[in-house]
Amino acid sequence: MDYFYGPGRNHLFVPGPVNIPESVLRAMNRNNEDYRSPAIPAMTKTLLEDVKKIFKTTSGTPFIIPTTGTGAWESALTNTLSPGDRTVSFLIGQFSLLWIDQQKRLGFNVDVVESDWGQGANLDILASKLAEDTAHTIKAVCIVHNETATGVTNNLAKVRKILDDYRHPALFLVDGVSSICALDFRMDEWGVDVALTGSQKALSLPTGMGIVCASPKALVASETAKSVRVFFDWKDYLKFYKLGTFWPYTPSIQLLYGLREALDLLFEEGLDNVIARHARLGNATRLAVEAWGLKNCTQKEEWFSDTVTAVLVPPYIDSAEIVRRGWKRYNLSLGLGLNKVAGKVFRIGHLGNLNEPFELVILGYETALECSKTQTLRVIIAAEWSHGLQLLGCLAGVEMILKDVGYPVKLGSGVAAACAYLQNSTPLIASRM
Amino acid sequence: MDYFYGPGRNHLFVPGPVNIPESVLRAMNRNNEDYRSPAIPAMTKTLLEDVKKIFKTTSGTPFIIPTTGTGAWESALTNTLSPGDRTVSFLIGQFSLLWIDQQKRLGFNVDVVESDWGQGANLDILASKLAEDTAHTIKAVCIVHNETATGVTNNLAKVRKILDDYRHPALFLVDGVSSICALDFRMDEWGVDVALTGSQKALSLPTGMGIVCASPKALVASETAKSVRVFFDWKDYLKFYKLGTFWPYTPSIQLLYGLREALDLLFEEGLDNVIARHARLGNATRLAVEAWGLKNCTQKEEWFSDTVTAVLVPPYIDSAEIVRRGWKRYNLSLGLGLNKVAGKVFRIGHLGNLNEPFELVILGYETALECSKTQTLRVIIAAEWSHGLQLLGCLAGVEMILKDVGYPVKLGSGVAAACAYLQNSTPLIASRM
Amino acid sequence: MDYFYGPGRNHLFVPGPVNIPESVLRAMNRNNEDYRSPAIPAMTKTLLEDVKKIFKTTSGTPFIIPTTGTGAWESALTNTLSPGDRTVSFLIGQFSLLWIDQQKRLGFNVDVVESDWGQGANLDILASKLAEDTAHTIKAVCIVHNETATGVTNNLAKVRKILDDYRHPALFLVDGVSSICALDFRMDEWGVDVALTGSQKALSLPTGMGIVCASPKALVASETAKSVRVFFDWKDYLKFYKLGTFWPYTPSIQLLYGLREALDLLFEEGLDNVIARHARLGNATRLAVEAWGLKNCTQKEEWFSDTVTAVLVPPYIDSAEIVRRGWKRYNLSLGLGLNKVAGKVFRIGHLGNLNEPFELVILGYETALECSKTQTLRVIIAAEWSHGLQLLGCLAGVEMILKDVGYPVKLGSGVAAACAYLQNSTPLIASRM
Amino acid sequence: MDYFYGPGRNHLFVPGPVNIPESVLRAMNRNNEDYRSPAIPAMTKTLLEDVKKIFKTTSGTPFIIPTTGTGAWESALTNTLSPGDRTVSFLIGQFSLLWIDQQKRLGFNVDVVESDWGQGANLDILASKLAEDTAHTIKAVCIVHNETATGVTNNLAKVRKILDDYRHPALFLVDGVSSICALDFRMDEWGVDVALTGSQKALSLPTGMGIVCASPKALVASETAKSVRVFFDWKDYLKFYKLGTFWPYTPSIQLLYGLREALDLLFEEGLDNVIARHARLGNATRLAVEAWGLKNCTQKEEWFSDTVTAVLVPPYIDSAEIVRRGWKRYNLSLGLGLNKVAGKVFRIGHLGNLNEPFELVILGYETALECSKTQTLRVIIAAEWSHGLQLLGCLAGVEMILKDVGYPVKLGSGVAAACAYLQNSTPLIASRM
Repeated sequence: MDYFYGPGRNHLFVPGPVNIPESVLRAMNRNNEDYRSPAIPAMTKTLLEDVKKIFKTTSGTPFIIPTTGTGAWESALTNTLSPGDRTVSFLIGQFSLLWIDQQKRLGFNVDVVESDWGQGANLDILASKLAEDTAHTIKAVCIVHNETATGVTNNLAKVRKILDDYRHPALFLVDGVSSICALDFRMDEWGVDVALTGSQKALSLPTGMGIVCASPKALVASETAKSVRVFFDWKDYLKFYKLGTFWPYTPSIQLLYGLREALDLLFEEGLDNVIARHARLGNATRLAVEAWGLKNCTQKEEWFSDTVTAVLVPPYIDSAEIVRRGWKRYNLSLGLGLNKVAGKVFRIGHLGNLNEPFELVILGYETALECSKTQTLRVIIAAEWSHGLQLLGCLAGVEMILKDVGYPVKLGSGVAAACAYLQNSTPLIASRM
Repeated sequence: MDYFYGPGRNHLFVPGPVNIPESVLRAMNRNNEDYRSPAIPAMTKTLLEDVKKIFKTTSGTPFIIPTTGTGAWESALTNTLSPGDRTVSFLIGQFSLLWIDQQKRLGFNVDVVESDWGQGANLDILASKLAEDTAHTIKAVCIVHNETATGVTNNLAKVRKILDDYRHPALFLVDGVSSICALDFRMDEWGVDVALTGSQKALSLPTGMGIVCASPKALVASETAKSVRVFFDWKDYLKFYKLGTFWPYTPSIQLLYGLREALDLLFEEGLDNVIARHARLGNATRLAVEAWGLKNCTQKEEWFSDTVTAVLVPPYIDSAEIVRRGWKRYNLSLGLGLNKVAGKVFRIGHLGNLNEPFELVILGYETALECSKTQTLRVIIAAEWSHGLQLLGCLAGVEMILKDVGYPVKLGSGVAAACAYLQNSTPLIASRM
Repeated sequence: MDYFYGPGRNHLFVPGPVNIPESVLRAMNRNNEDYRSPAIPAMTKTLLEDVKKIFKTTSGTPFIIPTTGTGAWESALTNTLSPGDRTVSFLIGQFSLLWIDQQKRLGFNVDVVESDWGQGANLDILASKLAEDTAHTIKAVCIVHNETATGVTNNLAKVRKILDDYRHPALFLVDGVSSICALDFRMDEWGVDVALTGSQKALSLPTGMGIVCASPKALVASETAKSVRVFFDWKDYLKFYKLGTFWPYTPSIQLLYGLREALDLLFEEGLDNVIARHARLGNATRLAVEAWGLKNCTQKEEWFSDTVTAVLVPPYIDSAEIVRRGWKRYNLSLGLGLNKVAGKVFRIGHLGNLNEPFELVILGYETALECSKTQTLRVIIAAEWSHGLQLLGCLAGVEMILKDVGYPVKLGSGVAAACAYLQNSTPLIASRM
Repeated sequence: MDYFYGPGRNHLFVPGPVNIPESVLRAMNRNNEDYRSPAIPAMTKTLLEDVKKIFKTTSGTPFIIPTTGTGAWESALTNTLSPGDRTVSFLIGQFSLLWIDQQKRLGFNVDVVESDWGQGANLDILASKLAEDTAHTIKAVCIVHNETATGVTNNLAKVRKILDDYRHPALFLVDGVSSICALDFRMDEWGVDVALTGSQKALSLPTGMGIVCASPKALVASETAKSVRVFFDWKDYLKFYKLGTFWPYTPSIQLLYGLREALDLLFEEGLDNVIARHARLGNATRLAVEAWGLKNCTQKEEWFSDTVTAVLVPPYIDSAEIVRRGWKRYNLSLGLGLNKVAGKVFRIGHLGNLNEPFELVILGYETALECSKTQTLRVIIAAEWSHGLQLLGCLAGVEMILKDVGYPVKLGSGVAAACAYLQNSTPLIASRM
C-alpha cells in the first residue's frame, strides 16, 4: 500500500528510541553549519570531555560516531581484534545474539555461553573458561550490560573480578546501549576496555550517534588489530583529535547541539539522581506487574532491569496482540517479544526522558549597559524531578489492553501498586519548594 | 526573587491554556512574513471561511482579533450596544462575574441574575424578565456557555426558546471560550448573535487570538451602536474584508499558520467526533471523582461540563494545597478554585488536544517527472482518536496528591473507574485497523 | 480563488514584521503552560524589569499587552485622557494619520499639525500653539518618533525642550513602534510620559505584544482619565502587579519566552551597539539609493531614519510594480508606498534581526559529580555583530528589479557604494578574533 | 580554551553541509517514534520508491544507511568487491584522494589515474587501461562525479561509453555526493552500478544518511563479494525489505520525516528545474569571479561545476585568510582550499536550498461535515523558484573580504556581472504570477 501514517505525539514506551525532552528538540531545531569553522571544534571539545563523565571514566578516549548501536559494536570489535581472534560472548537474548552474529561475521572465533532467555550471563562458565585458558587464547570477553529483549542486567563488577582472579589479559568489551546514563556503570572502576551506547537510548536523543569509549589498553590494542576498517577506524579520529578539528568526516550539527543540551540536562539532574530515578521507575513497573498477577520474564531479582521490563503473558494470549492493540486503540507504543520470546512477552521501556527537568535560572545582568560587552550570567541549579505520571498513564493503558485481550486483570490494580510506591518515594521538586 | 523556572514538558490539566499538538507547534515554527503580500490574504480567506464551521454558522461574519478572551468580550459588547443599554447577564462563577464587571465598566445597565456557584443560569428569571419587558428595554442577553470556574454548562437552546417564546428582540451574546470546538454549539440553529472563543482553549493554540462571530442582526446593530471603540471596531475589519487584504493591523503570522493546522486537525477528526471525545473524557473524569468519594461542584447532571470538572474537597483540606503539591511534586498542573470557591475546589481541565490525531496520508505522485510541474496529491482521511492515557496519568497523579494531603483515597480507584468506562467506549483508531 | 501560498524563507525587508532570530524561534517552540503557576510570574517579573531598559527608563511602569501597535496606541490614549480633551498631533505620513484618526474616534479634540509627507513634524507650530495655550487646554502632545511610511525620524529631545520652554504640563505621548530598540530613545531623559512599541518591530518577535511604558505622571493621569476602557485598562494590570501574579488575563506563554530571549540577545549585543548597527545599515542603504541616482523620500538629513528608507521613483515608474516584482520574481519583500505616496515610493526596512548574534559560551562544570546538585555555570559574553550581507542581497535584488521595470540603473552600483562604506565600518566579531 | 560559540543564522556557502529549508526543519521537529510500528515501514516504502527518482533509476535498489558519505563509499565498495580486486580510480582532488585511500585500506589493488588538481579525470588513460585489460582483471571503475575540492565535474556518459566500447564488464561505481539532486545524473542511462550521496548535500538535510543505490548487476556482485562487512552489509537490508519492516537497525525518525519533506520539495520544483537552477547559480558565480579578475581553479569549461566554484587567489594572498575573515567579520562561511590547493583557493558552495520554494496549495474540504470522515484534499502544484539574492549577498561579502585582504577588487563588479545574468535568466515564480 502506498501510504504512511503521520501520527502526533504518542505514548512511547518502547525501550528505545525514547522520548526526547522539549529543550533538546529546541536545541536541534537549527540550520546546518560549517563544521570546519572554529565554533564546532570548540563545542566538540566540551562534548568529548563531558561524554567521559557518563561512562565514569577519566582515562578513556571517547569517539562520537555518526552511526547506530550496531555500528558502535563494529567499531569496538574491529579496532581491538584481529580476524581469527577468540572471544567469549554471552547469549541471553536477541541483542546479545545479534552482537554474537556480528562477531562471527567479522571473522572472530566466538565461544558462545548461552543461558535461558530471562537469565543473566553464566559467569561460572566464564570463570572455568578463563581458568583453562592459561595460554591466553581468549582475546576479549564481550557482554551486553542490559539485555533489552528480556530486561536482564548483568553484573559487570563480577565479570571484572573473575578476570582479575585469573589475571587474564582479555579485553573487556561492554554493550551499554540500554544501560549507560540510566543504570550504574563505572568504566574505570570495573576496568572496562571498550564501552558503547547509542544516542536514542538513555541519552534521549534521536538515533544517529554511536558513542564508544576506549580504555588506554584498548587504544594500544587498536594499533596492532588487523581487522579491516576505515569508516569505523579510531586512527582517523585520533589524527583529527591531534589537529584539533576533531572530525574525520561530517558530523550532524543538530545532534551535536542536541548532545550538548542532553548532557547539560543530565548533569543538572545529577547522574546519580538519574540512576536513582530509573530505579524508582523500575520498581514501580515491577510492582504493577505483580499486582496484575503476571510474571517478569527476568527470572531472578539480581538481574531485574531498571530500564526495561519484559512481562510474560499466559499461554492463551499472544503478546504481539497486546502491542498491536496498544498502538491501534490507545496510541501506546510497547515493545514486542523478540525471537525466542515472541508472542510470550511484551516489554515496557522505562528509560530516558520519562520525566521532566525543571531548571531554576538565576539571571543577573551587569548593570552597566553603556559598556559594550554586557555580561549575562546564568547559574543553573539542578532540580529534583517529578516522575511517574507518564508511566502511570502507560500502566493504566496496559490494564485496559489486558482486559481487551481477555486477561482477567483488576482495573486500577497495577496503577494503585505503583502509586503507593511512588507516592512515598518521589521527592519534592527542589526548585519548586 | 530574581529568578524564573524554565520547565520542560509538564502534565497540563488546567482548563486553558491547553496542550498544543506537535503538528501545530511545527506549523508555527517559522519566520515572520509580509502580511501585505498576496499569500497572507489568500490564506486568511480560507481561515475566515473555515472558522465559521466551528461556530456552526453559515450566515455569521467572523473576526480573528489579535487579543484574548477578555478582548473578545469587549469586541462583542462595544460593537453591538450603546452606553446605558440594558443587558441581562447571569452570574454563576468567576468568569461570568468578570464579564459582568466588564459590562458595567463599559457603561451598560446590567441586570444580574445570580445563582449559587455550582448551578447553571437561572432561566426562569430570564423568562420572567422578558415577560415583563414589553417595552423591549433589554437590549442583550449575555451568557457564558460553559463557566470554567465551576464546570457548569448552560442550556443555550433553552435561552433561545425563551427569547422566541416572548418574541423578544434582544441580542443573544454568548461567551463560548471554554465550549466552542469541544461542546455542542450551534450558532445559527440557536440564533446566537455574537459568539466568541479564544485560541488557547479547545482550538489548542497559544493565546493571542480572540475569535468573534457576528450574526447579520449583530452586524446591523454594530452600525448604530454608540460605544466608543477603535481597536475592537468591526468596521475596520469589514473595510479590509472588502479590499481583500483582510487585516486592519498586523496579525501574528505564526498564529495564522497555527490556526490553519488546528482547523485541519479538527476537520480531519470531524467536529462531531471531537465533541463525542470530550463527552468521553468528561464521563471518565466524573466516574473517577465518584470513585474517590468526592463531589462534583456542579450540582446537577444537566449542567455537567465535558471540558472541565471542578472537584469539591472536604472542609479539612485546602484545595489550593492540592494544586500546589501537584505542581511541586508531580509536575501536574491543575486549576485552582477561584473567588467564592477558592480553597474548596480544584479543577481538572479535560479539553483540547488531550489525545493525538493520526493522519493517514495517501501519496500519489504524478508519474511524468519530465513535465515541469509535478503535482503532489495528498488525500488526508480523518482518523479516530485514541484517548485517555494522558487523562489517566493525571487521575493517578490526583490520587497520589489526595493521599499526600490526608484524604483517605483508595489508590487506583479513580483510575479503575475511568478505565472500565474508557475500555468499553474507546473506538479503535480507524486508520490503524 | 480558494488557495493560499505556503512560502519558505524569503528575503524580508518590509519595515515590520521583521526577521526573527533562530534562537528566538527555538525559545518559542514549546507547549502551553499554566500561567498561574509560580514559574510564569517569576519570569514576568524579570521581563517587566528588563523591558524598562529598552525604554531607558527607571521610573516608568511597563505594560505588556496581548495586542498590536494599534491597541498599544489605544492603551496610551484611553488611560491618560478623557473624552473631549485637546491633543496636538503631527500628521507626517500614514501611521501618524492612523493614530490621529484613532484619537478622533476615541473622542478627543485633535489639533492636527500637518507637514508634507517626507518632512518631519513641524515643531515651530508646536511652539506657537504651546505659547498661546496659557490656559493649558492642550492635554497631550502626540508624536510618532519614526514615521514608517516615509522614513522620517522626529526630534523628540526638541519636543521636550519646547514643552519645557513654555513650562507646559501637557502629557508627552510617543509612538516608538519603529524606533524603540533600534533608534536612540530616552524615556526618562526626554520626559516622555507614555511610550509604546510592538513586538514584531525592532524586538524581532512575532506580532502579539503591545509594550507600553507609563511615566509616574501618566500613572497619576490614569487615575482620573474618563475614557471608557476595560481590556486596555492599566488598573487591572496594576492590581495584579500588586498581587504578584501579574496577568489580568491569559498571556501568550510562547511570546513570554520569546521576549526573554529577545531581550537577552539585545543586552548581549548591548543596546548602544544595536543602535550603532542600525545607523550603519541606514547609512549603507542611503548610499546605495544615492548611487542608483534615486531620491530619498525624506527631505532633510536631520530626519533620515535608520530603520526604514522610503525611495522615490521617477514618475514613469509605478513603485507598486517594484514591490510586486520583488515578490513575484526575487522572493524579496519590500514595503509599498502608502496613501499619498502610493505608487511614488517603495520602502526598504532595515531594522531588527538583520544580522546574527554570536554568543561565546564559557562552560565550567563543578567537578563534584557525587554531590547531588551539580551547578552549571554559563557565562555569556556579548559579541560584536557581523552585518550587511543580508542587506547587500536585498540591494542587489532592488537593482535587478529597477532594471526589470525600465529604470536605467547601473547594476552593482548601489551594492558597491554600500560595500565601500560597510567594508570600512564593520568591526570584527569580537568573540571570533 | 574551554568554550564554544553558539552562533545564530549565518551565510552558509560551504559546499556542504548546506542550508536546510524551513519546511524540512519543521518536519524534523518531532519526538522519537517506535520504528517497529506499522507507520514507519509504510513511510519507508514511499521513501525507497521516491529516492530512486533522484538517481534516475527504475531498476536500482536503494539503501538509506545511518552514516555519512564516507560510510556510503565503504558500503559501495565492500558489498561489490573482494580483497585484492583491482580498481581503476581517478585522483583529481581531496575527495577522490580520500576515496582512493579508503579503497587501499580496504585491501583493493588500486590503479590510480592522477590529474592536475583543477582538471577532470583522464579518461584517455581509462580507455588505454581497458583496452589492455582483455583478461578483465579490472573489477571496478571508481569515479567522483563532482570533485568538491576543485569544483570539477566529470563526464560520466563518456566513462560509460568507454566501458561499452571495450565491452568491459567492470563495475561502474560513482560518488555522487556533491552532484546528485543538483547536477544531471542518470543512473540507468549511464549504466552506473553503484551511486551514492549524503543527506547534507543537495538534499539539504542534516548529516546522517548515506544513500546508496545498487544496480541489479551490483546486487549480483554483492552475493559473492568477499569483503568483510556487517553494519554496511546490503544483505541485512534486503532481508528486512522482504519482511516489510525495512530496517535492520534503528533509523533516525527525524531524518525520515525530513527526507520525506525534502523529496516532496524536490518533486514540487521538478528535478530538471532544480538542475537548471543550479546551472544558473553556477553561471552567475563564474561571471562574478571573472569580473573580479580572478581565475577558476577548474581549468576547462567542460569541467565547470554547477555546485561549487573553487577560486584561485593571487600568490601574495593566503586563501585561508579569506575564509577566516569571512567568518570573523561577515558571518560568511566559505570553503577552505584543501591539501594541494590549501592557501591557493577558496570555495563558494552554491548547492541545495539556496532559494526558497513556494507552494500553491488548493484546499477543498468535503462539504459534508456530518459524515465522520471528512476528507481534506490538498493539491500541491510545483512552483518556479526565485533565486540569486542569497548568492548575491555572498558575492558582495567576498568582494569586501577581497578588499580587506589587499586584492584590488572593484566593489560591486562581481555582483553586477551576476545580476546582469540573473536578471535576464530568472523566471517569474509561477504560482505568484
